[in-house]
Amino acid sequence: MIVVMKTGSTQEELEGVQKHITSKQGLRPQVFQGVERTVVGVLGTTYPELRDEFEALPGVREVVPISKPYKLASREFHPDDTLVQVGDVTIGGNELVVMAGPCAVESEQQVISTAHMARKAGARILRGGAFKPRSSPYSFQGLGLPGLQILAKARQETGLRVITEVLTAEDVSLVEEYTDILQVGARNIQNYRLLQAVGKAHKPVLLKRGFATPYEEWLLSAEYILSEGNQAVILCERGVRTFETYTRNTLDLAAVPAIKRLSHLPIVVDPSHATGKWHLVAPMALAAVAAGVHGLEIEVHPNPDQALSDGAQSLTFENFQQLMGGIRSVAEAVGLTVASPTT
Amino acid sequence: MIVVMKTGSTQEELEGVQKHITSKQGLRPQVFQGVERTVVGVLGTTYPELRDEFEALPGVREVVPISKPYKLASREFHPDDTLVQVGDVTIGGNELVVMAGPCAVESEQQVISTAHMARKAGARILRGGAFKPRSSPYSFQGLGLPGLQILAKARQETGLRVITEVLTAEDVSLVEEYTDILQVGARNIQNYRLLQAVGKAHKPVLLKRGFATPYEEWLLSAEYILSEGNQAVILCERGVRTFETYTRNTLDLAAVPAIKRLSHLPIVVDPSHATGKWHLVAPMALAAVAAGVHGLEIEVHPNPDQALSDGAQSLTFENFQQLMGGIRSVAEAVGLTVASPTT
Amino acid sequence: MIVVMKTGSTQEELEGVQKHITSKQGLRPQVFQGVERTVVGVLGTTYPELRDEFEALPGVREVVPISKPYKLASREFHPDDTLVQVGDVTIGGNELVVMAGPCAVESEQQVISTAHMARKAGARILRGGAFKPRSSPYSFQGLGLPGLQILAKARQETGLRVITEVLTAEDVSLVEEYTDILQVGARNIQNYRLLQAVGKAHKPVLLKRGFATPYEEWLLSAEYILSEGNQAVILCERGVRTFETYTRNTLDLAAVPAIKRLSHLPIVVDPSHATGKWHLVAPMALAAVAAGVHGLEIEVHPNPDQALSDGAQSLTFENFQQLMGGIRSVAEAVGLTVASPTT
Amino acid sequence: MIVVMKTGSTQEELEGVQKHITSKQGLRPQVFQGVERTVVGVLGTTYPELRDEFEALPGVREVVPISKPYKLASREFHPDDTLVQVGDVTIGGNELVVMAGPCAVESEQQVISTAHMARKAGARILRGGAFKPRSSPYSFQGLGLPGLQILAKARQETGLRVITEVLTAEDVSLVEEYTDILQVGARNIQNYRLLQAVGKAHKPVLLKRGFATPYEEWLLSAEYILSEGNQAVILCERGVRTFETYTRNTLDLAAVPAIKRLSHLPIVVDPSHATGKWHLVAPMALAAVAAGVHGLEIEVHPNPDQALSDGAQSLTFENFQQLMGGIRSVAEAVGLTVASPTT
Repeated sequence: MIVVMKTGSTQEELEGVQKHITSKQGLRPQVFQGVERTVVGVLGTTYPELRDEFEALPGVREVVPISKPYKLASREFHPDDTLVQVGDVTIGGNELVVMAGPCAVESEQQVISTAHMARKAGARILRGGAFKPRSSPYSFQGLGLPGLQILAKARQETGLRVITEVLTAEDVSLVEEYTDILQVGARNIQNYRLLQAVGKAHKPVLLKRGFATPYEEWLLSAEYILSEGNQAVILCERGVRTFETYTRNTLDLAAVPAIKRLSHLPIVVDPSHATGKWHLVAPMALAAVAAGVHGLEIEVHPNPDQALSDGAQSLTFENFQQLMGGIRSVAEAVGLTVASPTT
Repeated sequence: MIVVMKTGSTQEELEGVQKHITSKQGLRPQVFQGVERTVVGVLGTTYPELRDEFEALPGVREVVPISKPYKLASREFHPDDTLVQVGDVTIGGNELVVMAGPCAVESEQQVISTAHMARKAGARILRGGAFKPRSSPYSFQGLGLPGLQILAKARQETGLRVITEVLTAEDVSLVEEYTDILQVGARNIQNYRLLQAVGKAHKPVLLKRGFATPYEEWLLSAEYILSEGNQAVILCERGVRTFETYTRNTLDLAAVPAIKRLSHLPIVVDPSHATGKWHLVAPMALAAVAAGVHGLEIEVHPNPDQALSDGAQSLTFENFQQLMGGIRSVAEAVGLTVASPTT
Repeated sequence: MIVVMKTGSTQEELEGVQKHITSKQGLRPQVFQGVERTVVGVLGTTYPELRDEFEALPGVREVVPISKPYKLASREFHPDDTLVQVGDVTIGGNELVVMAGPCAVESEQQVISTAHMARKAGARILRGGAFKPRSSPYSFQGLGLPGLQILAKARQETGLRVITEVLTAEDVSLVEEYTDILQVGARNIQNYRLLQAVGKAHKPVLLKRGFATPYEEWLLSAEYILSEGNQAVILCERGVRTFETYTRNTLDLAAVPAIKRLSHLPIVVDPSHATGKWHLVAPMALAAVAAGVHGLEIEVHPNPDQALSDGAQSLTFENFQQLMGGIRSVAEAVGLTVASPTT
Repeated sequence: MIVVMKTGSTQEELEGVQKHITSKQGLRPQVFQGVERTVVGVLGTTYPELRDEFEALPGVREVVPISKPYKLASREFHPDDTLVQVGDVTIGGNELVVMAGPCAVESEQQVISTAHMARKAGARILRGGAFKPRSSPYSFQGLGLPGLQILAKARQETGLRVITEVLTAEDVSLVEEYTDILQVGARNIQNYRLLQAVGKAHKPVLLKRGFATPYEEWLLSAEYILSEGNQAVILCERGVRTFETYTRNTLDLAAVPAIKRLSHLPIVVDPSHATGKWHLVAPMALAAVAAGVHGLEIEVHPNPDQALSDGAQSLTFENFQQLMGGIRSVAEAVGLTVASPTT
């Protein structure tokens, strides 16, 4: 962080700034006297709110953040890729991992049939929501515990690993019993109690980007999890909110190479929630693969037009199987592997 | 909600749509046969996700939402203004209510001195955070319970009512003991467990708009609270996230008249968080008053340049006192009253 | 502009950066050797594209812009307010100037009747479009020259000054003959040929902010006009594009005090285009006044429901007259004057 | 377009709406009497501004657009893909066309060397700006006519076709002499005079999306060109403006399949301007290919760190050659062809 003094700032104001920096634990100032103006470097672990604070001091023209305010999530301090192990599945390495399943768990039959199909097509992880965050209190809110039990049964029958969303800190221990990956949804990107709770859990966490979350804040939210001790964090790009209304959100695929540069954590993409339209899912899934993503989270439903949630963005079994072929081709073209279809 | 069929859609597809509507509890279809195309009205309480669902049906070109998906928060179903009673203070009527205080509770001295000054200047409610949601895990997170106790003491000494933020469902009963209004922050706009918990509380709730929350979703989040039984909900505009970086957020003051038209709930504005710069707070506070707001939430600090949180956007005592004079003048110009200064 | 070197950057890389800076006309480097890293200040008139350029150099971690890239538009280099003189009307001083009239010139009767009413109510300037920029080629595109002639006739009859939009550089001399202020619309915020052309004109220019234009780019567009010699530039905030769809745009009223701080140019607000709904125009007009705006541009139409353009956002004569009363009250409350109604 | 009447609207209001519709040339009403409310369909060619107009009528609750307001650009009215012919190069078919070159033409040596390299690597079209639109009047504005002559020379020497930007209507005939494709930049997306001028030109037009342009407005801008007679329009996605600041813009790759569904016009992607960082160009180029794009526009420069414009986002020759290999692999994986490298 660099504090830029006004052109006519006084020695007293400069000392005020230095004193203010020193008053913060772990920070110290370093003054650069330039020809036209003076700037003061702030050494130590800074955080975003300091910017506004320093800007309010007399004689200060502007405060410019330089150090990234996250450490544990930063590639600068952890150059090697983090590999997240989920049973026998590794996320973050050379294998592109497909997570597939319905948006919401609706019935045993729905989940089990989807799981069998997904496994055969080459998916490694089953997705499905038992607790659903919904904009309206009148929408279907998920089956809760019975939903978790259905997921566990599907895992047992198919050998797929399971990912499901946890909505609140108090549910973490319950959900953790039934799932292999704890998903934190876009709406909870700054639910810090929940982040701290999954940070103390013993399962990997998939952290979705919020509707209006810049990379830096996303990595700061990951930092909350990492700083509680859980190093197995996967980031998931799922679109951000813009002025465009044709798509539900605007998928920001540049997040894939950008996050890989800024952080050592694996990054996956959810093209289903990002676009909200099933006919955009396949091209965006392939695009994500070409961009070098570590995994995909894709909605599949045996009867999308009868889904209780997000039918419009779900693929049919047939479309999903066809997509898996495309994913395999593009993955190969960019040097990634994908699990083979089984019978 | 109107389902628009494709120009060449078949009778079978039309029946499929009707059948699908009927399969939803409480919904029924009404077909309009036009010259060029057929549209199907969906009667009953719809919700946003239905749009995507219907759009996935064969023969459907487009689904157009019409009914507002919120009911309890809607002025259409509740034409009279809701007045929220906080002790002897009424929010939502002709008196413009000023809530003032520091961003974070730091010490007894800081809070009590601010409270005395604010009361004398004409504020009716004391604001201050004991639990602080912060982007970085390394930022000051608030004093917690001791912070609540300081607020309670300030209330006792000054007679001001108190508003403070609650971060999680499990804290609601604790915070409720010490505060007069429960604040739900922008980051928790879709933390539904928290919304449900404050919906069961016995204190009024101030619900801040999220960084990227359209009016409709904001009112749906209010609907979560109302549908749990708590009718005392105040909405608070605090800026949304845009491409502009000079201000911390972009304050959307049109929300004031727009929300007053769409809903019966009171609406207040927080110019401090919206702008992030103290020198923009006064003009935006006055603008909000002229727009017809029911209240203001303003950050004041005895020593903004030593604040542990949001110093850059806090007013000094002197600036706040001066602002109160301006608020009083503009309020009078638009037919609102403000509490008089006391001694 | 500050170039921040990587922690392990070499002396050779540092010299490369210095050499690169020196290779640019009018720029020179100043090296600050810190404990942890080296930063290089870039002295001289920088421009935004330099940032990307320096960031591409070996050994550079980040480039941080500091100097504002506009000069002539900057308050730092021109501390006194610019007063724009339009006949006997001064924009930028203590009198709040109201510009009113229809979106598009449709007929002599429509314009003349509006002009008489507006003048009586206290407006000083008549607005009306003869050349209309429209999203669709099938929308009404304006009357062109006959429209300009109608405006000139209205000026002659009422004594009001006239503002109208110019769409292209080659029309500037024609439009200049008939108007007192040349308006450059939001869609042309970066039509540099047009900016240069109005910069050579002899009439004041009102420059509307673009749909997605940050303050800095807006002032850079003003800089194009100023650098051609025309110092009479008025800025106009008219809303930016966000995710919110209830309003046509999101009116950013913080632009009023922000621009007044960053620049010496007058700033006015157009609440009609900003909101797109007539019932939001009055509260936003009053809010702009309370925020300290120098003027307002408001759409009025004798029969809004028969307007060829933007009927939904136009006020009736009655609503406009009532609004003028409100504007006068709020203006007085914040120490501004408004022209009195006449008979 | 559907006009939804208020629940308690009167017969007189309904007739007012019908009469208003009939008063518009080419429009007629069709009334649907429902149980709870009445809706009126508007038949004929509507345009966006009608929405606001109808919403202002008494008794109207809401107006819902249905017909797309563009016709010539719409796939509904032109189901077959448009193939744009540029000499022997076809854009819009099965061959993915790479356009490469420097952001700005700086010298003959720079352009010719880049052109030779690009041709050998498999590019078919040479890009380079002779007229540069720049945010700051102090930035390099392009060489103008000498720049066009350099491009023409490079075409002659290499056989590559040429694309270059035209900034204003009056330059169209000059630029048309020297180029094979006329590029209209993001800043001119709603410069309607320019759109009309290139609509009368005899060369294909590449129309870049604006910073804040929804698909519908983009296609309406294309409609301006098409309606003047020029059917050879190529659309180019180049990122939109959001709250994210790490990338220069947010590349919206879902535009590729979305535009292919909404329109018959070819669509290409410019990953260089979209990201603003050279290290994000290759992954985003490959992602665009996997998404099914018809072409790519990529910045290449012999010495990116000495470029007069956009150096940070330019690839070196070596990086470009390597990228072409990747493009070829991914294109093959999704069934597209790319021109082979030559010697």
